[in-house]
Amino acid sequence: MRTLIICQNGNFSRDLAPHAISDMLAAPDTVIWLDIQSPSDDDIRLLREEFGFHPLAIEDATRAHERPKVDAYEHAVLQHPLGPEEDSTPQAEVSAPPGRHAYYFIVVYEARFDPAQDHVMTEPINLFVGQNYLVTVHQGDIKHVRDTLSRWQMPDSPLGNTVGALVHSFLDAVVDDYFPLMDRVADRVEELEDTIFEEFNEQAIQSIFSLKKDLLSMRRIVAPERDVLNVLLRRELPIFRPADVAYLQDVYDHIVRVTENIDTYCDLLSSALDSYLSLQSNHLNQIVKVLTIASIILMAASLITGFYGMNFENMPELRWGMGGLWALSLIAAVTAALVIYFKRRGWL
Amino acid sequence: MRTLIICQNGNFSRDLAPHAISDMLAAPDTVIWLDIQSPSDDDIRLLREEFGFHPLAIEDATRAHERPKVDAYEHAVLQHPLGPEEDSTPQAEVSAPPGRHAYYFIVVYEARFDPAQDHVMTEPINLFVGQNYLVTVHQGDIKHVRDTLSRWQMPDSPLGNTVGALVHSFLDAVVDDYFPLMDRVADRVEELEDTIFEEFNEQAIQSIFSLKKDLLSMRRIVAPERDVLNVLLRRELPIFRPADVAYLQDVYDHIVRVTENIDTYCDLLSSALDSYLSLQSNHLNQIVKVLTIASIILMAASLITGFYGMNFENMPELRWGMGGLWALSLIAAVTAALVIYFKRRGWL
Amino acid sequence: MRTLIICQNGNFSRDLAPHAISDMLAAPDTVIWLDIQSPSDDDIRLLREEFGFHPLAIEDATRAHERPKVDAYEHAVLQHPLGPEEDSTPQAEVSAPPGRHAYYFIVVYEARFDPAQDHVMTEPINLFVGQNYLVTVHQGDIKHVRDTLSRWQMPDSPLGNTVGALVHSFLDAVVDDYFPLMDRVADRVEELEDTIFEEFNEQAIQSIFSLKKDLLSMRRIVAPERDVLNVLLRRELPIFRPADVAYLQDVYDHIVRVTENIDTYCDLLSSALDSYLSLQSNHLNQIVKVLTIASIILMAASLITGFYGMNFENMPELRWGMGGLWALSLIAAVTAALVIYFKRRGWL
Amino acid sequence: MRTLIICQNGNFSRDLAPHAISDMLAAPDTVIWLDIQSPSDDDIRLLREEFGFHPLAIEDATRAHERPKVDAYEHAVLQHPLGPEEDSTPQAEVSAPPGRHAYYFIVVYEARFDPAQDHVMTEPINLFVGQNYLVTVHQGDIKHVRDTLSRWQMPDSPLGNTVGALVHSFLDAVVDDYFPLMDRVADRVEELEDTIFEEFNEQAIQSIFSLKKDLLSMRRIVAPERDVLNVLLRRELPIFRPADVAYLQDVYDHIVRVTENIDTYCDLLSSALDSYLSLQSNHLNQIVKVLTIASIILMAASLITGFYGMNFENMPELRWGMGGLWALSLIAAVTAALVIYFKRRGWL
Amino acid sequence: MRTLIICQNGNFSRDLAPHAISDMLAAPDTVIWLDIQSPSDDDIRLLREEFGFHPLAIEDATRAHERPKVDAYEHAVLQHPLGPEEDSTPQAEVSAPPGRHAYYFIVVYEARFDPAQDHVMTEPINLFVGQNYLVTVHQGDIKHVRDTLSRWQMPDSPLGNTVGALVHSFLDAVVDDYFPLMDRVADRVEELEDTIFEEFNEQAIQSIFSLKKDLLSMRRIVAPERDVLNVLLRRELPIFRPADVAYLQDVYDHIVRVTENIDTYCDLLSSALDSYLSLQSNHLNQIVKVLTIASIILMAASLITGFYGMNFENMPELRWGMGGLWALSLIAAVTAALVIYFKRRGWL
Repeated sequence: MRTLIICQNGNFSRDLAPHAISDMLAAPDTVIWLDIQSPSDDDIRLLREEFGFHPLAIEDATRAHERPKVDAYEHAVLQHPLGPEEDSTPQAEVSAPPGRHAYYFIVVYEARFDPAQDHVMTEPINLFVGQNYLVTVHQGDIKHVRDTLSRWQMPDSPLGNTVGALVHSFLDAVVDDYFPLMDRVADRVEELEDTIFEEFNEQAIQSIFSLKKDLLSMRRIVAPERDVLNVLLRRELPIFRPADVAYLQDVYDHIVRVTENIDTYCDLLSSALDSYLSLQSNHLNQIVKVLTIASIILMAASLITGFYGMNFENMPELRWGMGGLWALSLIAAVTAALVIYFKRRGWL
Repeated sequence: MRTLIICQNGNFSRDLAPHAISDMLAAPDTVIWLDIQSPSDDDIRLLREEFGFHPLAIEDATRAHERPKVDAYEHAVLQHPLGPEEDSTPQAEVSAPPGRHAYYFIVVYEARFDPAQDHVMTEPINLFVGQNYLVTVHQGDIKHVRDTLSRWQMPDSPLGNTVGALVHSFLDAVVDDYFPLMDRVADRVEELEDTIFEEFNEQAIQSIFSLKKDLLSMRRIVAPERDVLNVLLRRELPIFRPADVAYLQDVYDHIVRVTENIDTYCDLLSSALDSYLSLQSNHLNQIVKVLTIASIILMAASLITGFYGMNFENMPELRWGMGGLWALSLIAAVTAALVIYFKRRGWL
Repeated sequence: MRTLIICQNGNFSRDLAPHAISDMLAAPDTVIWLDIQSPSDDDIRLLREEFGFHPLAIEDATRAHERPKVDAYEHAVLQHPLGPEEDSTPQAEVSAPPGRHAYYFIVVYEARFDPAQDHVMTEPINLFVGQNYLVTVHQGDIKHVRDTLSRWQMPDSPLGNTVGALVHSFLDAVVDDYFPLMDRVADRVEELEDTIFEEFNEQAIQSIFSLKKDLLSMRRIVAPERDVLNVLLRRELPIFRPADVAYLQDVYDHIVRVTENIDTYCDLLSSALDSYLSLQSNHLNQIVKVLTIASIILMAASLITGFYGMNFENMPELRWGMGGLWALSLIAAVTAALVIYFKRRGWL
Repeated sequence: MRTLIICQNGNFSRDLAPHAISDMLAAPDTVIWLDIQSPSDDDIRLLREEFGFHPLAIEDATRAHERPKVDAYEHAVLQHPLGPEEDSTPQAEVSAPPGRHAYYFIVVYEARFDPAQDHVMTEPINLFVGQNYLVTVHQGDIKHVRDTLSRWQMPDSPLGNTVGALVHSFLDAVVDDYFPLMDRVADRVEELEDTIFEEFNEQAIQSIFSLKKDLLSMRRIVAPERDVLNVLLRRELPIFRPADVAYLQDVYDHIVRVTENIDTYCDLLSSALDSYLSLQSNHLNQIVKVLTIASIILMAASLITGFYGMNFENMPELRWGMGGLWALSLIAAVTAALVIYFKRRGWL
Repeated sequence: MRTLIICQNGNFSRDLAPHAISDMLAAPDTVIWLDIQSPSDDDIRLLREEFGFHPLAIEDATRAHERPKVDAYEHAVLQHPLGPEEDSTPQAEVSAPPGRHAYYFIVVYEARFDPAQDHVMTEPINLFVGQNYLVTVHQGDIKHVRDTLSRWQMPDSPLGNTVGALVHSFLDAVVDDYFPLMDRVADRVEELEDTIFEEFNEQAIQSIFSLKKDLLSMRRIVAPERDVLNVLLRRELPIFRPADVAYLQDVYDHIVRVTENIDTYCDLLSSALDSYLSLQSNHLNQIVKVLTIASIILMAASLITGFYGMNFENMPELRWGMGGLWALSLIAAVTAALVIYFKRRGWL
């Protein structure tokens, strides 16, 4: 499914033959957003022929399960995003207009909690960001794409008519969606604490484990996205304007906050598990103490009754008038002595 | 609630119409402090129109729950604070006076212990620091704002009439407030140690866990504040003078000390929990040993009484004159043998 | 076993006398791939005399058990790959043609799961990468070498006739093979979780330990391979063309993904073991509780029967008509009292 | 208490009026050491007026509980020690002679073991290091100050008459004092190992914990001191001569060695605690096994005696001639069967 | 003990008066190796006067217990090895020939396993490496020194007649000796695994602990040696030729491999201990289960026999003809009921 929107001097239109895109890209004061859901072979050909994207970027965009990343392509050639490229050998084989060929290929992940599966669901969204176009490629129906598209077309939209504002607005929506997830984790951690320190609950350990799994899978998305924004903030390609930096920095700050939350909650969960184990071991200890004392007292009492249950013919006590009472008081005396002894040892 | 104080050549006044601020900002030898508590829409308009702050900074200042950070704005454009901005493309669209537009937006956190909730309370304070103004925005009533304001207006105040001294004095007050919290943690850790090594206390584990939570939440404030001061120390904007560096370095040193304390106490708490668990397991071990020995001795004695309680007709011992004594001495002999055996195995 | 393939202007041939290789290396538009399996002394002489490789590189290539690495040789001299070489002292003693002497020596590892041994098997592959040649040296029969060779010779192969495409294609095949291993680990972790939270299984701990061993041995391969690709991406030798960077970056991204997966699974396994231990300790706790309660109830009941089994002559109860019932109801009453007591303490 | 020593061309004198210090500082071939113990207000005035130190540095020097640090002051302005100061704006307001105003303010810690308190005692020493003077400020009586002072004044002292040699000699003495502490920790760890693997000792856990506390408090001193020496080695102020670097490097190497020792011992202590817990759990295991077997055998034997203690009228065995022996052999048989069973299960 | 070998144009001689060394050092095409075992005062004077080494380096070389390190001396002044020395102030006081005064002082450690003490033994070796000399200083008899000396003097030795080849050959021999140690650790870890998962062994925990101690002491040697090679690879002194880099890089790679092995084995040992504890806790769990069930069944049976052992006059069952059988079948029924109950709870 393909949605193509052209904004020319503030006027929006959707009527453009696909083969006219390549011409439109050169027009000044024009911003083009092409959204492709579940790309068909036809869509892929469009990306290759009209936009001239690198085959690898197109392959990544249509294949699932890439990790969040940003690749900077310039002159049809990937710039190594990990460090400045020092060699400036003349690249004579490329003569395409620079405005068209300098673009970022970005992969970010939408994340939302699916109550049905009690699990965090993530879905990749691929962005091609050029000087005056934005191409989004994804499989499912992404709420943020729809929302940003309609917010963009509202009259007097704060998004302006630059690609930078569009990208910021989109990334901001994606990252802001991580916070409800964090809040949910915070709530669960709060619940777990109550559970742990109040009453016993076998589910608690399973919850700690599944929360940890969720946090680890969030971290695998968020950590590389932080790097993505770091690269964009360096502005090595002439795509974002200086004024966009404040907005990208804002998204960056939010991602850093999410990362810190994840690390703090991981720490807290480990502490919670440790505390839980301590409390359990302590509980066990208490019960074993009571067992020791009660069973030893009962055994001592049983020994007395066993003693007077022996069939020796010559046991003078057996003939005492108050034999039962004598035995009972003997039991009581031994019990009292043991209780005092255990109290002295600090076991009661 | 708005407090506006102007210091012109050492004289303080509070009389200035809000719309005159923008003119005052250009006056030499003038320092302006505007404090806004619980900002109204009117206040926000003032920040936007008179000071010309970036919309994002204003949004962050009026929204709660940002993490400590510093953003450096120059020529109405955010400088990327994570690395030097190499590109020096002429930014012709901005022609505002530089003195007005170069400013830091800083978020720091006040932290204090709330005995009522037995919990560390934190509250963000937002600062806009320009060459000759300081704007503080916050929700609640911040003691440090009040104190610094009144100390500033005292005759012969050491704060001087520069923004650098004001900011240093304010940050110093905020950071110095972390030390009583650290002292409290130190006291609690000391107490916990005594508890752990002296007598049993189920509360101890809960205390360790809640202390750890407090330390983790402190770390989430203090670690980014260290980065804030690092950025200020680089003095990339012409706001702080060389002479201010010594003072900012002092605040930086204090924050580093707090950070190290937090890490050390986290380590100590983990060690304390480990030690506690070891002691508990050892305690359990001791009790189980006593149980083993006592119960086995009692069982052996019971077996003897049970033996002579059997109803066989032909047991010659039953007819002995001293049957009871015989059984008693048998029990004593078995008990002694077992005690010797257990001592030999090192269990007693 | 030696396989030599020459691609000249898109035409492939296998007929070349070994001593002609050195001449062929200077020919333009030629790509040579020499594959050596289980190198003989003859092969080693070929590498030394025709290609002029450094003795150390040849020694490493024929010796097993090197770790993944890349060494950049230029002018018969190793460039220090850890940092830029600043000294540019004229190296007059070397006058060989630069195209021939600038080459990378690369060691990577193939990894596959061997179901027979239930273990990850790894095998080193050594690559010499020059501007127009690729030499692969290995011991066993490496599937990826065979595959890449035949894919290269297919008509209209996307590999092109450059060394960069060959190397990328080969490394991509090697790294893509790590993903099935990761999937297998993911499946095993999933299985383990079910085992842990459902029923007891002594094998589970052994599985966790052996999975961890596999992950650690994978990490020892993958982590230095990431560094290898980092060095290649810096393109300090004039071997890869700018257009190759996108492809190498792609391999790099995949390796990073594998590394992150390994770390996440290591974390998860630790969490799984912790959770398992918690559940076990909890289980034990439950059983000890039941033991406490049941044994104490039985002991109390036994005490009652022991009491009425004493042989005192004067126990009026013994003459009661319903003696047995009396004892039974006494036992029932004590049992009920104890059950109520334990319920009150929350132990049932 | 104030000690002032002036070394002029190798001659030492102690006679100098305090107000003459500022003049002396400009004299060539002169080295001045001023030692202040428990600084009075008079001493503080001296530091401010004669030496012209920065108020913050003086405040830090007279206040306790700063962490080890170095601050480099130049032209009455603090140089940011964390990175090179790029801005070289003319600082016209300062016209003092550079030799006087460029100085380091250093805080290091003396550490020694106090057997009375069984605890590591630390005490800060503050140094002001200028081109031809050294000022030491401390509270207690510091052995290293006295020693270095007298060694300096010995004829043919290797300390030379430069400040660099004095500072090196002093720091070397301070750092060399850490090694006996490390040796003591090594001895204690060795002892603990023996305790742990030989016989049980409740004190061991407490010792591990208190050793860990000592190590953590040592780390809080040593880690920042390493940074201090790193800054001095960069020689950004014209105070140390190139020839001094070898000596400072030597002190640096010693500090690194102490740091590594601390980390290794922390690791070893954790391992020791883990091993101890393992051994304890294993011990418990053994005892529980013996309990299981012994109690079950005794219970089975008791059941037999109980059986023949029943009062049924019609039990033919009761009339057998050798009833007691029959019961005894029955008990022996059951015991033997159980022992064989438990041996088969590997529990004995 | 002193061994002096001079190689001049490939000819070796041992005849040189000590006081002639300083002249020989200036001769071209000469390589001198001086080996000093257990240095005497005479040897120390030789190092100071003939070679002109820095007093600190000589002190370090003759004192034991330095950690592995490299110091670069140039113009009688130590270059700070941690970063490039930017200041190039003319050092007029030094006029010695540069070839003589630029040298590395290196400390490395030989490590070998001593079966007698069941412990890793380490011994420091000190190297002074100049442009045309190598001085080795050590206490004991070092096999690698002897070996390298004799290999050097063999006809057609691959060591060439450069200092670089000598140093590489020597360091290579030292580092290659670490691998047998690693193999021994690998064997021990393999053994431990079998022990842990097969049968119980109290020694296992002690072995894990002592292996960990060995690994930690190895790490304290190997980690700084990696830094040593890093410094040598930077080639800041004109001692090693570009062609030597490949060989030093080779030694570096081996050290990195050893470091990684150490880390992996440390991880594995921790995992092994965790697994062991899990298995033990599980074992305990199983035994406790059997105890619970068996003791409760026996107690229930005892209660029945106790019941019929009561002396009530009016218990009709006692008069039944088959009283014993009745009691036996009652016991069997209760036992069966309990077994079924425990099976249902999953405890059997």
